[in-house]
Amino acid sequence: MSFPPSEYRTRVDRAQAMMVSAGLDALLLTTEPDVRYFSGFLTRFWESPTRPWFLIVPATGDPIAVIPTIGAALMAQTWIVDIRTWRSPDYDDDGVGLLVGALKGFSAIGLPDGPETHVRMPLSDFKRLERQLGSPLRGDGGIMQALRMVKSDAEIAKIATACQVANRAFARVPEIAQQGVPLSQVFRQFQMLCLEEGADWVPYLAGGAGPGGYGDVISPATDAPLAKGDVLMLDTGLVVDGYFCDFDRNFAVGPVSKGTQAAHAKLIDAVDAAMAVAHVGATASDLFCAMDQIVTGGAGGSDAGRLGHGLGMQLTEWPSLIPADHTPLVAGMVLTLEPGIDVGHGRMIVHEENIVITANGPRFLSAPAPRQMPVL
Amino acid sequence: MSFPPSEYRTRVDRAQAMMVSAGLDALLLTTEPDVRYFSGFLTRFWESPTRPWFLIVPATGDPIAVIPTIGAALMAQTWIVDIRTWRSPDYDDDGVGLLVGALKGFSAIGLPDGPETHVRMPLSDFKRLERQLGSPLRGDGGIMQALRMVKSDAEIAKIATACQVANRAFARVPEIAQQGVPLSQVFRQFQMLCLEEGADWVPYLAGGAGPGGYGDVISPATDAPLAKGDVLMLDTGLVVDGYFCDFDRNFAVGPVSKGTQAAHAKLIDAVDAAMAVAHVGATASDLFCAMDQIVTGGAGGSDAGRLGHGLGMQLTEWPSLIPADHTPLVAGMVLTLEPGIDVGHGRMIVHEENIVITANGPRFLSAPAPRQMPVL
Repeated sequence: MSFPPSEYRTRVDRAQAMMVSAGLDALLLTTEPDVRYFSGFLTRFWESPTRPWFLIVPATGDPIAVIPTIGAALMAQTWIVDIRTWRSPDYDDDGVGLLVGALKGFSAIGLPDGPETHVRMPLSDFKRLERQLGSPLRGDGGIMQALRMVKSDAEIAKIATACQVANRAFARVPEIAQQGVPLSQVFRQFQMLCLEEGADWVPYLAGGAGPGGYGDVISPATDAPLAKGDVLMLDTGLVVDGYFCDFDRNFAVGPVSKGTQAAHAKLIDAVDAAMAVAHVGATASDLFCAMDQIVTGGAGGSDAGRLGHGLGMQLTEWPSLIPADHTPLVAGMVLTLEPGIDVGHGRMIVHEENIVITANGPRFLSAPAPRQMPVL
Repeated sequence: MSFPPSEYRTRVDRAQAMMVSAGLDALLLTTEPDVRYFSGFLTRFWESPTRPWFLIVPATGDPIAVIPTIGAALMAQTWIVDIRTWRSPDYDDDGVGLLVGALKGFSAIGLPDGPETHVRMPLSDFKRLERQLGSPLRGDGGIMQALRMVKSDAEIAKIATACQVANRAFARVPEIAQQGVPLSQVFRQFQMLCLEEGADWVPYLAGGAGPGGYGDVISPATDAPLAKGDVLMLDTGLVVDGYFCDFDRNFAVGPVSKGTQAAHAKLIDAVDAAMAVAHVGATASDLFCAMDQIVTGGAGGSDAGRLGHGLGMQLTEWPSLIPADHTPLVAGMVLTLEPGIDVGHGRMIVHEENIVITANGPRFLSAPAPRQMPVL
């Protein structure tokens, strides 16, 4: 369990207050971060899609876990007391009957149905659940988003730790990346650096390399060797105790043009511009506009669709830094600032930092990158 | 792209024949493995839950990708030609309208809704999709399961490569694990070995350590040091070019009792018993029974719920080795054999191998473990 029970109790208390306002009798949660948010149930076993897992948070009283027997021992190590299990997979009834029993007595049941959510159970079982309950489930009215979007001090400390691990790994990139080294080898060795510096695991690594910039930022690494004049970018979402960092660093493979360094410097300026406005009361949209003004002169962003986002238990969380997101910044939000710049010829450079909003202004969680890219 | 276009065309052809039989005009796919199965679209970017991704496979003609602009460049590198994009996230319409347009003209649209599936898009958007289409979506009738459960030679070669990487990493465990080393450090360093030996990444690592056995197999590692008499187990799902292995190895930390070694030997016997029956025409249930007979004398298994499963593009896939799974084994199925034994005091030992079913009988993809656990 990553936190003391008081942390989880506080989360449940906040959820229950919101459920009363929303007229909900219970929340039904099915995804890894939502289940873990209230229980502390932390395992990489979710990588297996086979078994569904459920947590019920009632409007009054303690949460109820409805889970496969294989998870009973681990759930019993959390603060959750009411743990109901079935031996999954069960082709006749993979937990639905048990879940229906646990939900008996609740009438207005909500589950997350908005942006960035999904229901992690087979659709046929979801329909069966609704049939057996006798009424359709409701949405959660954005309760999980509202709760998880604002981090506690304990959560911020975890994210900061993840960022520090990545800081140390990025500082060691010159050990593994030089002209002639295949990008695929850089990817492997960078993940090893992340682990060596303290990551529990490295769920996410993306990047790219190309002359003066790269063509895209989500492709897997090829075996193409780094070439003189390339910009190399590595973007990692590593995890420590269940919390992510998510930021990148750019490196020049040998000397690059002044224009390339200037493009990078402009991204740093964009982050600085966002930091200048990232105060309580500003909005996600304000951060977008501050960065977009520097990078495109206010043209409205790029194909990435946004210039940053929340992070925490997942690599990306609400809000999105887009013009349409008017979420007010409040103390405790952890965000990425992720401006990208088109450098022509179908190439770009993307830069990313992690910050936390505090009552006294924003604070970097990642060690901010210098204006000039380090030269490998 | 992991395979030549002919591989994907063959998959589409097979799907289309099954769709005709099932009376479906199109399949709608939303998850990473399903989208990749037909397109070859391989990226770790699915780690971000923000954006939905869609692939439509019509009963005649080529697939249509309906995806966020951020993925357009990578999708254009696959064999998919019809790529329709929107700038996501879009709070007014996050791809639903575009998807409805692409689905116009299809009336019976199926999507995977059975065991081990989920719909990876917000429930509110799914309901909106059904409203705009004017009729509910159907299930896929198990088409995706039937297709993906039987691997092509090219897929088997990828899984074999992943297994060989893990073989080499397991062979090096004595370099990193000895009495006194914290389990958490063993976990980190084992992932580094996997990467060093050629894994692209290590999505899954579980394990445990304890006197004569371990209490559970899904918990994260603690900082407790390995102690003399412990059994250490490491279970990895590492990935090479988008395909998983999934097997474990047990190690004795210093000398362990004869009983402990005998328990391990019994698990090897169980695997051998399963191999003896793992011929075309036998069933998943037969494999369960062969192993359960050795381990429990036929008592019916354990809390894990199954004694093995399919694997491939995901850590775990259909079928499940349980009494109720009567899936006939056919050539091309890749399976784990995963017997576990209760060693008392709430502890167990679990052993796992990866095999492929061929016309000439089963073949190990993992290098089969010796009866005696290696002593560290």
